[in-house]
Amino acid sequence: MAQYTIGIDLGGTNLRAAAIDRSGTVLEKVSGSTNLAEGREAVLSDISNVILRLRQTFGPAGLAGVGVGVPGFILLREGVIANSNNLPFLENFPFRDELEKRIGTPFILENDANAAALGEKWMGAGRDVSDLVLLTLGTGIGGGIVYGGRAMHGFLGMAAELGHITVVPDGNPCGCGNVGCLEKHASAVAISSMARLLNLGENLTARQVYELAVRGEDPARRVFSSMGRALGVALAMLVNTFNFPVYLLSGGVLAAWDFFAPSMLEEVRRRSFTFRTTNTRIEKAALAGDAGLYGAAWLPWIDGRPE
Amino acid sequence: MAQYTIGIDLGGTNLRAAAIDRSGTVLEKVSGSTNLAEGREAVLSDISNVILRLRQTFGPAGLAGVGVGVPGFILLREGVIANSNNLPFLENFPFRDELEKRIGTPFILENDANAAALGEKWMGAGRDVSDLVLLTLGTGIGGGIVYGGRAMHGFLGMAAELGHITVVPDGNPCGCGNVGCLEKHASAVAISSMARLLNLGENLTARQVYELAVRGEDPARRVFSSMGRALGVALAMLVNTFNFPVYLLSGGVLAAWDFFAPSMLEEVRRRSFTFRTTNTRIEKAALAGDAGLYGAAWLPWIDGRPE
Repeated sequence: MAQYTIGIDLGGTNLRAAAIDRSGTVLEKVSGSTNLAEGREAVLSDISNVILRLRQTFGPAGLAGVGVGVPGFILLREGVIANSNNLPFLENFPFRDELEKRIGTPFILENDANAAALGEKWMGAGRDVSDLVLLTLGTGIGGGIVYGGRAMHGFLGMAAELGHITVVPDGNPCGCGNVGCLEKHASAVAISSMARLLNLGENLTARQVYELAVRGEDPARRVFSSMGRALGVALAMLVNTFNFPVYLLSGGVLAAWDFFAPSMLEEVRRRSFTFRTTNTRIEKAALAGDAGLYGAAWLPWIDGRPE
Repeated sequence: MAQYTIGIDLGGTNLRAAAIDRSGTVLEKVSGSTNLAEGREAVLSDISNVILRLRQTFGPAGLAGVGVGVPGFILLREGVIANSNNLPFLENFPFRDELEKRIGTPFILENDANAAALGEKWMGAGRDVSDLVLLTLGTGIGGGIVYGGRAMHGFLGMAAELGHITVVPDGNPCGCGNVGCLEKHASAVAISSMARLLNLGENLTARQVYELAVRGEDPARRVFSSMGRALGVALAMLVNTFNFPVYLLSGGVLAAWDFFAPSMLEEVRRRSFTFRTTNTRIEKAALAGDAGLYGAAWLPWIDGRPE
C-alpha cells in the first residue's frame, strides 16, 4: 500500500528532493545543485539517482508517485516543459515520460510557484482553506492559485503570471514588453533598483536595503513603502477578483514585512471593499523554501495529472 | 422526466422570465417591470405568478427547477441576498426558501453577472469552452468568472467584482472608496462623464457620444480610446491571472466596439505576453440582454446549489 511520495524541486540553481509520507511528515530531505552546465542528461541522471536512492531507503512498494516542480510553463497533459528561462535544455522534451521510463513510477510535473502554493495548502499557512493565492517574491515574482485544492493552470499552463500584472500603468519597463509590472516594483531586484535611485548604494541586495531600514534610514524605509504599495495594488485586484479567504507571500524579502506590510495593507484596504468588509487574510507563507517540495510531494495524492 | 427549467432575471428595473428546454431552446419568454415601489411582497408575488403560469403551460412534471439571477452578493448555501443596492428590501431575507415554499420546486440563486457568464457559456459566445470571464458594461461594470463550467463565487459570494479593479492608480474616485476603478473609466457613465470633460455636452448618454464618434467628432473618439485603454489594462490582468481561452464583453456600449476595441487590444497586447503569444479570444458576448436568462435557466441543470 502506498505510504509516501517523493517531491522534487528542480530550480535553475538547486535540485532538492524529499520523501514525505501521506500525513505530511518529511522522511528524508536531500539538497544538491542543478547540473546546468552539463546539460539535460546530467540533470536527468541526478533526478533519477536521488529518486532511486530514496525509493530504496523507504521501499518501492510504498511509493505512490513522484511530483516535480519546475520553473516555466508546463503542458500538463503532455508532461512537457513548454518554456523555461532557467532550464531551456528541458524545453519541448518528453520530460515526464522519460523519467517514468527510467524509474517505473508515475510522475507529475507542475510549475514551481503552483507547487509552492499547493504545499502551503497541504501543510502550510493555507491548510485550513481550499482556495488561496501565493505570491513568491524573489528575483522576479511568481504566482500560484489554488482553487478547490487544485492548482489553476489555464488552458495553456500559463495562469497565475501574477508578477506581470500592471500595478503602475506608466511604471518601470519589464522584459515581458509591458511597463509597470508588479515584479518591476516589488521584487528583490526592484528593491535594489529603488535603493540605487535613492543613492543608498550601487549594488545593494534587498537584504542590505532591509538592514538600512532597520537602522532607521528613511530612504530605505521609503523603498519598502513603495514596494508595499505596489503589492497592495496587485493584492486588491486579486481579492476583488477571487474573494478567496487567504493570500500568502513568500521569499527572503518577507524579513522586511514590518517595513512593507503597513503600506501594502493600507493600499488593499483602500482598493478593495471586499477586503475591508470581510475577514480576508493576507499573511506570510509558512513553509519558506520547502513549500515547493511539499507541493510536489502532494501532487500524486491529489491526482494532479489532468485527463 | 425533467425537460425544461425556468430562468428569472430580476433586476432593479425589469423582471424577466423564460422557460427553456434542456437543449437551450426558449419555449416562452416573459418581460415585465420590477415592482420596486410596492416592496418585497409584490416582487415575490410577481415572481411566483410568472412561474406558476409558465409551469402550467409547459407542465409541472417537466420542470427541473428555477434559477434566479439577482444583482448583489448572494450567500449561496443559505439562498439569501446579503447585499443588493438595487433590491435592498430582499436583503437578509430567506428569498430562496420562501420561493421554494410558495412554488414547491427547487430554486437556485445566482449573482446576475455570474448568471450572464453562465448563459454565454451554455448557449452564447463561450459555448465551446469551460472557462471564461464576462465583463458587463453598463451603468457600472460587473464581472462573472466561469471555471470548469461553474461560476467562481469566492468564500462569501463576492468574487468577480471586476468593475472595482484598479486600472488608473490615481484615477477617478469611486463610491467603493477606491480611486481609478475600472467602472469609473470604462462604464457607460464614465463615457458620459469623459464627454462632459471634453465639452461635448452636459448630459450625453454613451449612445449619444457614440453617435458623435460615428460622425467623426475627434473628442468623442478619444473618449472611446480612453475607455478602451482602461478595459485593456483590466483584461491584460485577467489574461495574465487566468490564462482562460475566452474573455467576453457585453452591454449596450458594445455598439461602439470599433471605436474602443483598437486601443483596448493594443493595451492588452502590450501588457500581456500571454495574450501576445497565444490564441486568446477577447470578443463580444453573443446573447445580449438574454444571457442572464439563459444562465439562470441553466443553473438547475448544472446542480448549481453548493453543498
